[in-house]
Amino acid sequence: MIAGDCMITVRVDVGGLVEGARKGQARSVARLISLVEDGHPALREVMAALAPYTGRAAVIGLTGAPGVGKSTTTSALVAVYRRLGRRVGVLAVDPSSPFSGGALLGDRVRMHEHAVDPDVFIRSMATRGHLGGLAVSTPQALRVLDAAGFDVVLIETVGVGQSEVEVAALADTTVVLLAPGMGDGIQAAKAGILEVGDVFVVNKADRDGAAATGRDLRHMIMLVEREPEAWRPPVVKAVASEGIGIDDVVTALEEHRAWLLADDGRRLDERRRRRAAGEIEAIALAGVRRRIAGLPPGRNVSDLAETVAAARLDPYAAADQLLAALGQAPPP
Amino acid sequence: MIAGDCMITVRVDVGGLVEGARKGQARSVARLISLVEDGHPALREVMAALAPYTGRAAVIGLTGAPGVGKSTTTSALVAVYRRLGRRVGVLAVDPSSPFSGGALLGDRVRMHEHAVDPDVFIRSMATRGHLGGLAVSTPQALRVLDAAGFDVVLIETVGVGQSEVEVAALADTTVVLLAPGMGDGIQAAKAGILEVGDVFVVNKADRDGAAATGRDLRHMIMLVEREPEAWRPPVVKAVASEGIGIDDVVTALEEHRAWLLADDGRRLDERRRRRAAGEIEAIALAGVRRRIAGLPPGRNVSDLAETVAAARLDPYAAADQLLAALGQAPPP
Repeated sequence: MIAGDCMITVRVDVGGLVEGARKGQARSVARLISLVEDGHPALREVMAALAPYTGRAAVIGLTGAPGVGKSTTTSALVAVYRRLGRRVGVLAVDPSSPFSGGALLGDRVRMHEHAVDPDVFIRSMATRGHLGGLAVSTPQALRVLDAAGFDVVLIETVGVGQSEVEVAALADTTVVLLAPGMGDGIQAAKAGILEVGDVFVVNKADRDGAAATGRDLRHMIMLVEREPEAWRPPVVKAVASEGIGIDDVVTALEEHRAWLLADDGRRLDERRRRRAAGEIEAIALAGVRRRIAGLPPGRNVSDLAETVAAARLDPYAAADQLLAALGQAPPP
Repeated sequence: MIAGDCMITVRVDVGGLVEGARKGQARSVARLISLVEDGHPALREVMAALAPYTGRAAVIGLTGAPGVGKSTTTSALVAVYRRLGRRVGVLAVDPSSPFSGGALLGDRVRMHEHAVDPDVFIRSMATRGHLGGLAVSTPQALRVLDAAGFDVVLIETVGVGQSEVEVAALADTTVVLLAPGMGDGIQAAKAGILEVGDVFVVNKADRDGAAATGRDLRHMIMLVEREPEAWRPPVVKAVASEGIGIDDVVTALEEHRAWLLADDGRRLDERRRRRAAGEIEAIALAGVRRRIAGLPPGRNVSDLAETVAAARLDPYAAADQLLAALGQAPPP
């Protein structure tokens, strides 16, 4: 008999899972990503075991407003990459993505083609909050796919909130999708996309206004100040639902990759160092936040907050006390 | 003679500024907010001096997509509150706001009416990044206005990204503005607004589709699960540019405030404790981040990131090393 409040931690065979993933076993890959998502105690062991095999995959981020056709484009890109013989991993961080269940039938059918292909691995990730931010565990899930030997990893994320900036920080190459007539005011308000995009795709290019959207976009891209040797983002037209223009998108992606790899790959190295720095700092700050959450009454945030809310202490002095308490607290 | 690289820190008379602000001198208020925005060394002294006077202002957040009429509504609300004899502070955290310079002439004219009123203080705050997030210093600027005795502080923020969640965390009452025909798909995608809004305003209600927008909104609000004794957000129609419906908005705001203050104000206390907790933690984490940035070569993030990018270390082990280095480092 097992007591009701007894927690059972199943011992995980990390070595076996990593070996299985390296051999291309989808089940091992899926299990490793689940460990990552669950924040399983074996997570550190997993990451240490994966580290030597990372850094090989081409990481491509796809972002855009809801309705521009991100999932359809992702699906079409998977098909082209498979034709080129590449193994492809997909992380869909998008609550409205057909990968995550909220599907249009046509997309579902297209996805099913890939679902039976052993060289394609598709995984939807839970988002953080309502606004479609990247899942906290996305960088680690990416490490799993990278170490498992996928040549290309596509990260699809809905372009609301800050997710396009987050995905750009994670990807080697960022694709920004637009569609004609999607409310230019709102798209323009998010001028941030002009700086994060390495390749722009005007999808649904068979619709009215596609030429104008492409022209406006080219104009706005030109207005962004760039260094003389900087990459000039191309604008590609596509109708992803019919596979039209997707080869051109892949060509643009390969050109960007060649640019990253030129000069002994210093540009790619630079991007990856920046990505690693962000990852390390995020993990460290999450650790600090966990320690803050674990402080005992009398020294914790909620007691300090009560004193501040009662106007008996200012928040800076309270933050000092919090950090002091952290210094005295035993490590987690 | 002064050497070229000599930094001069002007000694600030914190006591005098706080006294001036408490007396209603706009210049002192403005100077204190500038100290806050600049992260001036006197910031801690300022916050300590202000703390005893805080917690009195009714803090109202206004958010909504670009083009729904936030600034016009803010301006109209200022007029109504002034008629009621209240002193009003406005913090505009919106790059497209007329307060920040990007103005429509009509709005400018309306603002100028208030600009000469000594009992109205208007300040635009720089945003963080492209996506219109709240300025880091917004909570502290709010403390300045609160301590300076403004009865109502309106915080206007553009509703892209996570700013509506941030402003809701800061405000006692959050107003979400919508307008007919603003792209319902995009508005619906941001379902987060349904949970943060205490009062919903369908502005530009003289336009086609206003009734439908109001009906859809009411329906969506009804679908949000709420506790039995929770506040039921009203939907108010307005044409802010003509002042129509603004009295109704103020009535809704006062009703929400009465609800917050019922039962010995336990709901308001709860919101303010949560706000203070967020503020304290943000200040503490900013301090940790500053200490991380100040680590010497060999132990800093960029060196660790290089090792991680080269696949010789995993990011969790690197984060451990970073926190260990922080423990050894002298306090900033």
